[in-house]
Amino acid sequence: MNRQPIITLTTDFGTADGYVGAVRGVILSICPQAVIVDITHEIPPQDVAHAAFSLHSAARYYPPGTIHLAVVDPGVGTDRRHICVTSGDQVFIGPDNGLFSPFMGEDATVIELAENEFWLEAISLTFHGRDIFGPVAAHLGCGVEPGKLGPEIQDPVLLASWKNVIRPGRLEGAIVHIDHFGNCMTSFTPDQIESMGPFSIWMPGNGSAPESGIIRNTYADVDLGEACWLVGSVGLVELAVNGGNAEQTFGIERGDPVMIESKE
Amino acid sequence: MNRQPIITLTTDFGTADGYVGAVRGVILSICPQAVIVDITHEIPPQDVAHAAFSLHSAARYYPPGTIHLAVVDPGVGTDRRHICVTSGDQVFIGPDNGLFSPFMGEDATVIELAENEFWLEAISLTFHGRDIFGPVAAHLGCGVEPGKLGPEIQDPVLLASWKNVIRPGRLEGAIVHIDHFGNCMTSFTPDQIESMGPFSIWMPGNGSAPESGIIRNTYADVDLGEACWLVGSVGLVELAVNGGNAEQTFGIERGDPVMIESKE
Amino acid sequence: MNRQPIITLTTDFGTADGYVGAVRGVILSICPQAVIVDITHEIPPQDVAHAAFSLHSAARYYPPGTIHLAVVDPGVGTDRRHICVTSGDQVFIGPDNGLFSPFMGEDATVIELAENEFWLEAISLTFHGRDIFGPVAAHLGCGVEPGKLGPEIQDPVLLASWKNVIRPGRLEGAIVHIDHFGNCMTSFTPDQIESMGPFSIWMPGNGSAPESGIIRNTYADVDLGEACWLVGSVGLVELAVNGGNAEQTFGIERGDPVMIESKE
Repeated sequence: MNRQPIITLTTDFGTADGYVGAVRGVILSICPQAVIVDITHEIPPQDVAHAAFSLHSAARYYPPGTIHLAVVDPGVGTDRRHICVTSGDQVFIGPDNGLFSPFMGEDATVIELAENEFWLEAISLTFHGRDIFGPVAAHLGCGVEPGKLGPEIQDPVLLASWKNVIRPGRLEGAIVHIDHFGNCMTSFTPDQIESMGPFSIWMPGNGSAPESGIIRNTYADVDLGEACWLVGSVGLVELAVNGGNAEQTFGIERGDPVMIESKE
Repeated sequence: MNRQPIITLTTDFGTADGYVGAVRGVILSICPQAVIVDITHEIPPQDVAHAAFSLHSAARYYPPGTIHLAVVDPGVGTDRRHICVTSGDQVFIGPDNGLFSPFMGEDATVIELAENEFWLEAISLTFHGRDIFGPVAAHLGCGVEPGKLGPEIQDPVLLASWKNVIRPGRLEGAIVHIDHFGNCMTSFTPDQIESMGPFSIWMPGNGSAPESGIIRNTYADVDLGEACWLVGSVGLVELAVNGGNAEQTFGIERGDPVMIESKE
Repeated sequence: MNRQPIITLTTDFGTADGYVGAVRGVILSICPQAVIVDITHEIPPQDVAHAAFSLHSAARYYPPGTIHLAVVDPGVGTDRRHICVTSGDQVFIGPDNGLFSPFMGEDATVIELAENEFWLEAISLTFHGRDIFGPVAAHLGCGVEPGKLGPEIQDPVLLASWKNVIRPGRLEGAIVHIDHFGNCMTSFTPDQIESMGPFSIWMPGNGSAPESGIIRNTYADVDLGEACWLVGSVGLVELAVNGGNAEQTFGIERGDPVMIESKE
């Protein structure tokens, strides 16, 4: 049998109202065989960068052909574009506001959603998740080719990305994401650090966050309540507190600088 | 292939315990091919009117034949009736306490769930979602006709509904729902207002809520932090604050009066 | 047609990040026909006993063959074992930390997950739900026999269980679970109490919790705001406040003693 199409949802709608329920209904009305899977509906309101990171950390685990619908959309009702991004073997649908930046590699194709035959008939100006993006995702799930949705575009909006600054014996990066456990992810991969030999990692401008020469493998490598730098589950070096909350303990915010210096 | 039956869930159970999980298990045990879809489990505890509105705003987007299971049930274990409502091309299962008022139009048929062969064998007095409503929804999903569930009744409980008062050059309505963003929905549709020509809308008895002669199309039509009256996504005129919370900003409660006066 | 395999999820991950979404993706990549059903993702962080109770109260309602994936895992990355438990007609996958104690009856078979061909290739040390337990559950769902996953073991970790102390004319038990409504479940079943004839139930050491000689059937048997002992929906005697929160009202904690004395 043909596999049922998978459509994931990532939004900042919360789950207290019927909004997500309406989107699910729209999708099932157009494509009854769709399997709808939640990534999260609790993105901090209008935090596009947080959504991009969460989606990036989950999407890679989905099967080829998965359609990812993401709606964190501060510009709803303005003239920001609606887009469909094909990247690797997956497809992304949502507003053109940088949400899909992690998937905008060289192999990505971006289409502007222009053909309103794939939308609901009545389009509100405040709920495009239900009226435009949900219907388009459902039509894709049921076999419509992305090329039918509108023209290709070359200038999608991209989030400013954290580019580590590489200096002799030194890497300058930043905190790029904080999860709801308060774990603070940096822009560094373990590989980058290993290549340096003996090193020290710390947060300039934050006197309370610990300086260390060791990247741990798991929380339980340190005592309960103790902080450590470790390799997190998304493949980045992160600052965490075993059984605690590093964000609150050290007063860390996204964008705070992180420094690594070679000790050789 | 036959479409899989869709059963939606709307409750005030929250998601922190295994209660919703038990309902899902009961449904899948009776009707393994059911597709279970959440509308919301975060209705404010025992707030039947809030549930009725949330269900109404989502149900219309579901395919014909969808079964909507809703359990907000302050009277569980008393002699309040259990009902099945057939309305349009959809079916609703739950307690007879007004929850399905929006669907009680002239074409609605209401059946009292009386045949306990479609219930679990052991019936608790505090969890009818699991023991009665879930099993009945599952049996309907797998082909039982509503007429087999019990006798038709003519006197279902109805919520008092907001009826706008129409006076010469004047409409008197109310706030009928507040969502978790703090958007305050009125009992007015845009059509009703447009038919008046030039007008003014305001909340008598609330000096801080703004008076206006314009209904906006989207939040972004006003500056960040500014309030506006606009056409909301459920098709009603609502009071909102762009990037903010109108309920908290103006101290609004459900039932507060809203007035529209013609300025011709 | 063959029934689609059902895989339930019980975790303390919360739903604010993409973690649960990643687990769902892993499962669907390995076993696309799996039906993934949430029990809850809001177990209090690292509270293994709370998770065991929640899973126990929901699992019994699932069809034969259901696979229950549960991850509340304070020891992730240490040498605690990964296990698969076959109990009755259901299967459980997760860490060997007592999480599955309620299912460790005489008919249970416990296997240590040792065959890493059923895991993801890259195993993080902090997210075994995604890298080990999710993949194993998916392989089971798609037909792998539990016996292929590793060797049988005889000494799974068990939670200390509440054993009521039976004395002449007296039962000594405890509060074993508190749900998010604040209902406080005891270690007593209604049967145990009925067999005593006239009785009194109270909480020694808690002067504010009520003493009573009656077990109620439903919340509505007492006035709004009034406390009562009643038969809860999981089949245990519990202390509740109609329309209120018994945990907060009386300052109750899990493990607090509860006493029943015969009055004959």
